[in-house]
Amino acid sequence: MDSTVRLTGGMAFDAEVAGHHFTIDAKAEHGGADAGPTPKPLILTSLAGCAAMDVISILRKMRAEPATLEISASGELTDDHPKVFRDFTVTVVATGDVPAKKLWKAVGLSRDRYCGVAAMLRAHAPITYVVVLNGEQVPEES
Amino acid sequence: MDSTVRLTGGMAFDAEVAGHHFTIDAKAEHGGADAGPTPKPLILTSLAGCAAMDVISILRKMRAEPATLEISASGELTDDHPKVFRDFTVTVVATGDVPAKKLWKAVGLSRDRYCGVAAMLRAHAPITYVVVLNGEQVPEES
Repeated sequence: MDSTVRLTGGMAFDAEVAGHHFTIDAKAEHGGADAGPTPKPLILTSLAGCAAMDVISILRKMRAEPATLEISASGELTDDHPKVFRDFTVTVVATGDVPAKKLWKAVGLSRDRYCGVAAMLRAHAPITYVVVLNGEQVPEES
Repeated sequence: MDSTVRLTGGMAFDAEVAGHHFTIDAKAEHGGADAGPTPKPLILTSLAGCAAMDVISILRKMRAEPATLEISASGELTDDHPKVFRDFTVTVVATGDVPAKKLWKAVGLSRDRYCGVAAMLRAHAPITYVVVLNGEQVPEES
């Protein structure tokens, strides 16, 4: 598996992933034109996306399709270089007729068994999972 | 710092990073329509992009602008779940009137001091750096 970035000008690069392309760029304060995401938060996109694909697949196998599903990954950066995330939080926000127990089951399976991105990042810093269902945060033992 | 993915249909999600949007999707064999990258290789985009922005910035400070710069990150996945990268390789391919010594200096500073993505991923698996200048691989002590 691989990904390539090619300089197009300034601080902008064309990023290629399996035939798909998008632009990455630095923000203005780092000499870029903010024409696309910076590299570091793509780690968070990868973490959120990995959880999201696991969760929707598992919920569908359980016949518990959510009306909406949104997953965020966040992390606080250290002040010193190299700037790394101190920790990660994955927040799963779903709406619809989904039992909290099934949603947590799906999130737990992703966290503990399927999500390779989480398994890799956990070697660096802990990951906390939060579930919000129909506007209310629900604990894992629900 | 954060990133959010929102289900748009099937296995496709709109990924948002600091106001920029792109689609992530699963491949057909996993129920998707391959409308965008899958989550896992975005780790590699993040790693390649982080190195790329460091390297071009440092080369410019050294007044050694390359004619072209392309950086790939690759990794071999384990067979077992969760599928993780066994290792990473970052390959820096540059052309132009750039001394090999300056190019390696820039790559080394990214690797050892600036690239937070590399610092995080190294907690999981080793990262090897390769430099190819004007079509020839050059060793670090050059």
